[in-house]
Amino acid sequence: MPIESLISKRASGRTSGHFTQGPKDQPPKGFKPHSNPLALSYGTPNDGFFPIDSIDINLVEYPFEHVVKINSITKNSLENLHLTGSSNGVQTKTPPLDSKNSVHIERHTSDPNIIDLSNGLQYANVAGHRPLLNFTKEFIKKTHNPNYSNWDSILTTGASDGLNKACDAILDKDDVILIEEFTFAPFLRFSSHTGAKAIPIKLDLNAESQGINYEYLKDLLENWPDDLPKPKALYTIATGQNPIGTTQTLELRNKIYELAVKHDFIIIEDDPYGYLTLPKYRKPEIGLHFKLNDFITIEDYLQNHLTPSYLELDTEGRVIRVETFSKLFAPGLRLGFVIAHEKVINAIRNYSEIVNRGSSGLSQLIVNNVIQQHFKGVDGWLQWIFKMRLTYSHRKDLLLSTIFESEAYNRGLVDVIDPKAGMFATLKINFPKDVNVIEKMKLLEWKFIANGVLAVPSFNMAVDKKFSENRCDFFRLCYAPANDDEELIEGGQRLVKSVLEFFDNNLQF
Amino acid sequence: MPIESLISKRASGRTSGHFTQGPKDQPPKGFKPHSNPLALSYGTPNDGFFPIDSIDINLVEYPFEHVVKINSITKNSLENLHLTGSSNGVQTKTPPLDSKNSVHIERHTSDPNIIDLSNGLQYANVAGHRPLLNFTKEFIKKTHNPNYSNWDSILTTGASDGLNKACDAILDKDDVILIEEFTFAPFLRFSSHTGAKAIPIKLDLNAESQGINYEYLKDLLENWPDDLPKPKALYTIATGQNPIGTTQTLELRNKIYELAVKHDFIIIEDDPYGYLTLPKYRKPEIGLHFKLNDFITIEDYLQNHLTPSYLELDTEGRVIRVETFSKLFAPGLRLGFVIAHEKVINAIRNYSEIVNRGSSGLSQLIVNNVIQQHFKGVDGWLQWIFKMRLTYSHRKDLLLSTIFESEAYNRGLVDVIDPKAGMFATLKINFPKDVNVIEKMKLLEWKFIANGVLAVPSFNMAVDKKFSENRCDFFRLCYAPANDDEELIEGGQRLVKSVLEFFDNNLQF
Repeated sequence: MPIESLISKRASGRTSGHFTQGPKDQPPKGFKPHSNPLALSYGTPNDGFFPIDSIDINLVEYPFEHVVKINSITKNSLENLHLTGSSNGVQTKTPPLDSKNSVHIERHTSDPNIIDLSNGLQYANVAGHRPLLNFTKEFIKKTHNPNYSNWDSILTTGASDGLNKACDAILDKDDVILIEEFTFAPFLRFSSHTGAKAIPIKLDLNAESQGINYEYLKDLLENWPDDLPKPKALYTIATGQNPIGTTQTLELRNKIYELAVKHDFIIIEDDPYGYLTLPKYRKPEIGLHFKLNDFITIEDYLQNHLTPSYLELDTEGRVIRVETFSKLFAPGLRLGFVIAHEKVINAIRNYSEIVNRGSSGLSQLIVNNVIQQHFKGVDGWLQWIFKMRLTYSHRKDLLLSTIFESEAYNRGLVDVIDPKAGMFATLKINFPKDVNVIEKMKLLEWKFIANGVLAVPSFNMAVDKKFSENRCDFFRLCYAPANDDEELIEGGQRLVKSVLEFFDNNLQF
Repeated sequence: MPIESLISKRASGRTSGHFTQGPKDQPPKGFKPHSNPLALSYGTPNDGFFPIDSIDINLVEYPFEHVVKINSITKNSLENLHLTGSSNGVQTKTPPLDSKNSVHIERHTSDPNIIDLSNGLQYANVAGHRPLLNFTKEFIKKTHNPNYSNWDSILTTGASDGLNKACDAILDKDDVILIEEFTFAPFLRFSSHTGAKAIPIKLDLNAESQGINYEYLKDLLENWPDDLPKPKALYTIATGQNPIGTTQTLELRNKIYELAVKHDFIIIEDDPYGYLTLPKYRKPEIGLHFKLNDFITIEDYLQNHLTPSYLELDTEGRVIRVETFSKLFAPGLRLGFVIAHEKVINAIRNYSEIVNRGSSGLSQLIVNNVIQQHFKGVDGWLQWIFKMRLTYSHRKDLLLSTIFESEAYNRGLVDVIDPKAGMFATLKINFPKDVNVIEKMKLLEWKFIANGVLAVPSFNMAVDKKFSENRCDFFRLCYAPANDDEELIEGGQRLVKSVLEFFDNNLQF
C-alpha cells in the first residue's frame, strides 16, 4: 500500500526548509568548504543571553508522597523495588533511583542522552530534541513495537495537538472519518477544521463491552452509502475508551485492522493513559494507595497486562498512534508524541512549521533529563508508571465500591463498566424503556449538581446526539482529579444517592 | 469601526466551550447549588500524580556571566544598579534582586502573582495562566500603552505561533495582505496557509532608511488594481526590521496608521526584539560587554530610546501586536504573547483550542516566577533588558567596526545599515549597475562559505524575487549567535575579505 494515497492533498502540497539554510544549487568550480565556518546567519541568541544558569528538579518517590504517609518499612521496600523491579522476588535489571531524588540541569553537558540548557532553551528542530525523540522510540519498541521498519516519531504539544496534526495529515475537505459515537469531544473540532465529515460508529454499552461494535462497523463498511466517499480514517481510543472506559481485546483489534486494510483507511489510535492498566474490581482498603505485593514485573506487565497497540498489528504504516506525557508526567508540560509511518511524520513536521513550531524545549529537557537521570531510562520510567497504575487502580476501586455497595445498584437502577485501563468509568442509568433518555439525563445531571457532584453526561461527548439517542443513558466518571480517598467516596455516594432520589421521585428533579 | 468586519469568516464561524462544562440551560424549579461540589467530571490528574515536588531555578546577574569575568568593583556597581535603576545617580524604585540568585518553585503557594507547580503543571486555559497574562498587560501598559480600552492579551508558543494565529484571525482565502518586500520568511507560510495572497511593498535600502517606502505604499493603496480585493492587513516588523534592521520613526508610523484607517486594514506588528534599542555606532572596546555608565533610567529609555508601538497610535483596535520571550529570555520556552482588540484575542483563543491548546505551563511558570521573584516585576525585567541591549549594542558595534575599518568599505564596495534596535544589520554590496544582482549574490555567498562565514542572502527573504530583483544586493548579518568578541571580529573580517577578493576577481568566484 502506498501511504501517499492516504495523505491529505493539503499536507502533500507543503514543503519544508528555512531561509537560513545555505544554497541548494551546485557550488562553483574550485569551491572548498571551510573547516571552521562562523555563523552570522541564524537569528538565534547565543545561550550566554539566557538568564537561567542551571535548574534543579526535586522529585518524589511515589505519587502523593507529599500528603500520604508511608511507614519506613514500606518506604524501604519501595526503594528495594527499584533494585528488583518487583516485590515477588523476580530480578529485573531496573537500576536504583538516584537517592538524592533531585536532577541537576546545567548550561552545558557532553552527555548525549541529556538535553542541557544551551540546547533546551535554544531554537530547535520542530520534531523535537534528539535525546527525547530517541527515548520515545525506545519506549515504543519496548511497549508496542511497530510491525514494520520505516516508522518515526515526532514530539507534539500534547495529545490534542497530535490528534489535530493527524487530522491535517490525512483529511481533506469532504473526506469522511469514522469516530466512536461517544468520544473525546475536542477531536470533532480537529476533524471538522479540515472540512471532513464525521460519521459515528456504534459502541457497545454493557459490562463486557470492548467498545466498538464490530458487526455494526463491518456492516457499515460493506454497505457503504453510494453518496458518500469511503472513509479515510477511523479515530479510536482503543484502551480505556473516553468516555466509556472500555478496552478492545487483541482479537477485536485484529478484526478491525483487517477492515482497515480491506477498506483502505487509516487508524488514528489515541492512547493518552493506556499504560495505566487496571486490575478487575476488588474491594479496596481506604488510605492505601498501593500494596507492594501488587507490583508486577516489567515482563508480566508487557505480556499480560498491556493490550497490544494497533501499531503491533500494522504491517503497512496505516496506524497513527498519538501519545502524551500529560497523564503519566503532567499536563502542563504540553508535551506528547506521535508514532507513525515516516511519510505521515514528515507531513506532521511540515504542518508543525506552520501551527506551532514544536513543543517547549524546557518541557522537553525536564522530561528527558528526569527520565534519563532520575528514572535511568525506559525501565525506571515503567516503574513510575506502575506506581501510577496502582494508585489509579486503588482510586477506581474506591469509586466503584461506593456504587456496588449502594441501594441504587442493589435495586438495579445503575450499572458500571469496570475499566481495564485509564481514568474513566461509565455509570449507566437503567431508565425505563419508554422515557426520553436525554431529557431525563439532563434532569439527573441537575440532581447531581444540587447534591454536590459533577459528572459528564454522555450526550456532551456524542458525535451525533440523534444517532446515539438511545445509548445516551450514562455518565462519565473520572477518578483522577479527587484530592483524596474521602472525596472519592463522598463523590460516589452523592452520585448513587442522587440516582435513588431521582427514581424515588418518579424521574423528576 | 466595527472590528468584526475585519475578522476572517473562518475565525468568526468558530465557537468555544468544553464538554466538561456544566449544563447551559435553565435549572429545574427548586434547584439550589451545592456549597462544596466534588468533581468526578474533569479528566485532570490530581497534582499528587506529578513526579516533580519543587524546582529551583538558578540565575545569572548579567548575560555571559558564566564566561565573562567582571571584576568585583564592577560587580558591586552592578548590584547597586538594581537599587538605583541607573548609574548616573537618578533614583528609581527598582527593588534589589534576590541576592540568592535562585528562585524556588513549590507545589502549592497562596501568592496570587506566582504560578505554583499544582497550577503550572496542570491543564490550563489556552489563553494562559492569569499571573503571566497580567504581567504581559502591565508590561505593555508601561512600555507601549494601547490608546483604547478594550484590548486584551493571550499567550502563544512564540512569535511564529502569534503570527500564524493573527493570520488565521484576519485572512480568508483570496484575501490580500501587504508584506514588506524582504521579511521574516516563515510568515509567508502562515499567510498562504489561510489562502491569502501576499503583495510585497517596497523598502528603502539606504543608510538613513526607516524601512517601508511610504510614497510607494500610499500610491499603491490609492491606485489599487481593480482586479484585486483591497488589502485586509499589513504585516510589518517596524522596529529592527528583519532582515534589513531599520526602525520606522514615530512620524512614519503615524502616516502609515492613517493609511490603515483610510483604507481599512489591520496592522500586524511583529516586534520580537524591539526592546533591544541600540545607540548609534561607536567604536567598541573588545571584551567589555557593557559599560556601567551606558546604563540609562527607565524613564529615559521609555521616552527617548523605545520607539512607540502602533498600539499607541491605534484608537480603533486595528493593530495586532505580536511579542515573544524568545529573544529576551530564551527561544526554547516557546512562549510569547499577542496584544490586540479583545475580539481578535477571542478569535485567536478559539483557534488555539484547535491548533495547540496553549503554551507550556512549565515555561509559563518559570518565566512568570523568575520575573516576579527574581526581577521583582516590570521594572526589574526592564533592567535585565537593559543589560541585554548593552550587550547587543557592543556586539553590533564590534561587527560593524570590522566593516567600517575594512578596505572593502573604504573602496566603497560595501555599505551598512546601522540598526537602531534588534539583532540584524544589513551588509549592502555596491555592485556595478549592469550586473545580474541575484546571480552575483549567489556567487558571493559561495565565497563567504568558502571563507568560513555564513550570512543570509536577501533573496532568501524576499516575498517576490522578481519584484525585488534590483534591491536584492545585500546580506542579513546577525550578531546574536556568536560565542564571543573574537568570533564576531573574525566573522566580520571574513565577510569583507570575501567581498574584496570577489571584486578583485571581477565578480567571479
